[in-house]
Amino acid sequence: MIEIERAVMFYDTDAGGVVSNIAYLRFVEDARTVLLNTLGFPLAEIAARREFPAVLRTEIDYRKPAVLGDVIRVTARVEEVGRLRFWCGFELSRLSGGDVLATCRQRVAFLRMPEGGVLPVPESIRAEGA
Amino acid sequence: MIEIERAVMFYDTDAGGVVSNIAYLRFVEDARTVLLNTLGFPLAEIAARREFPAVLRTEIDYRKPAVLGDVIRVTARVEEVGRLRFWCGFELSRLSGGDVLATCRQRVAFLRMPEGGVLPVPESIRAEGA
Amino acid sequence: MIEIERAVMFYDTDAGGVVSNIAYLRFVEDARTVLLNTLGFPLAEIAARREFPAVLRTEIDYRKPAVLGDVIRVTARVEEVGRLRFWCGFELSRLSGGDVLATCRQRVAFLRMPEGGVLPVPESIRAEGA
Amino acid sequence: MIEIERAVMFYDTDAGGVVSNIAYLRFVEDARTVLLNTLGFPLAEIAARREFPAVLRTEIDYRKPAVLGDVIRVTARVEEVGRLRFWCGFELSRLSGGDVLATCRQRVAFLRMPEGGVLPVPESIRAEGA
Repeated sequence: MIEIERAVMFYDTDAGGVVSNIAYLRFVEDARTVLLNTLGFPLAEIAARREFPAVLRTEIDYRKPAVLGDVIRVTARVEEVGRLRFWCGFELSRLSGGDVLATCRQRVAFLRMPEGGVLPVPESIRAEGA
Repeated sequence: MIEIERAVMFYDTDAGGVVSNIAYLRFVEDARTVLLNTLGFPLAEIAARREFPAVLRTEIDYRKPAVLGDVIRVTARVEEVGRLRFWCGFELSRLSGGDVLATCRQRVAFLRMPEGGVLPVPESIRAEGA
Repeated sequence: MIEIERAVMFYDTDAGGVVSNIAYLRFVEDARTVLLNTLGFPLAEIAARREFPAVLRTEIDYRKPAVLGDVIRVTARVEEVGRLRFWCGFELSRLSGGDVLATCRQRVAFLRMPEGGVLPVPESIRAEGA
Repeated sequence: MIEIERAVMFYDTDAGGVVSNIAYLRFVEDARTVLLNTLGFPLAEIAARREFPAVLRTEIDYRKPAVLGDVIRVTARVEEVGRLRFWCGFELSRLSGGDVLATCRQRVAFLRMPEGGVLPVPESIRAEGA
């Protein structure tokens, strides 16, 4: 499991006064990127090899709103691993007080681009899900 | 049911050469906005009344990648309606050829902001889900 | 000159209740894309040839705020053309009433990617700037 | 002067393989937010008082492309201060090697929202520009 912290910026909020539902997906991507980096897949290598982690499905539940001034703590972990796909799980909470703001799961596969062929889940990720 | 068309822009794509998983959520929001407008909830009134449609949950399945030059057709409809929440369903397809690119569902509630109180689902939306 | 219209979406606004300064740049890019398409450079061909219009400089003046419910009219034109670079000019106004919301200029060059070599400004754009 | 570092994310890049011209403005806003926080204007207070720093003009020059794997160092400082408006200056450089990627200036005013009235530049910012 990894965790990151992100301060809410103006561009994350909308006219309702709260963080936009879409902005949370950037926080999730930040955390997924750090998670994959930790497991041996830094972005520079991903780009060089043209073997990209692609999101196949996202499920996200919005529980409480985040606002300007909040710092959001995002945890990410590998939750289940198959041969060709794996699930990552995320929890977003307010650093101050610890309220859970959103929970999220993403199913991910590594694709060789631009052809789009699916690659087996790498060993370091399989080990994490075991 | 409503439908809209959106041409893929540079800022929708990422270094994998395809539309970013996050950009699809903007297309979905565009369609949801048009759907709610059709059902009597234009954005100007939403903002004036401070009664905002809030996304409670998103599920999205990415099926095929979209690329620069594609025009994406997005359909949106009300799928199920409860007393306080309703589901919208979306299909994103490539205008040329009709391939389904992604399917999405969002659970939505109307909230009075900034207090956050949940309002009953309005009648015009209940009628749509019946 | 071309013109497009864009309805302000939730994700364009911020907690100040107005359209975010960054969102205007998406409207500008939408208009620039339509302008270049009209001059013979559709995105699909740009991507296939790997000859991309790159923004070298942006100047944008924010004059009045746009809000939820506004439709923004964006005009774009080629303003000055050199051998390797050209300027596009943009005006963003509120469709209802016609207030000018922002004016913008961007200096653009065509680059061969990923090498980054600068290409001469194409003839159809030179003709436009004459 | 403050400085921050931001790792390039997938969603910052476009199909040209480089960071999108629009994404740089998010890095600039991150730095401006930290700068104003340092000078006594944390986002939580800005939102509570409804006195928002608004960008009146942006000038940005794109010098070299950033790519996946880069970490971008952004510096921000107050450059010139008038009674009602001030300029912030930004430099974005690649952490590894130090190449300057972009330089930017933004003219900013504090506005009371939603009325839009312009407030005098606060003393802590005037002191910085002296």
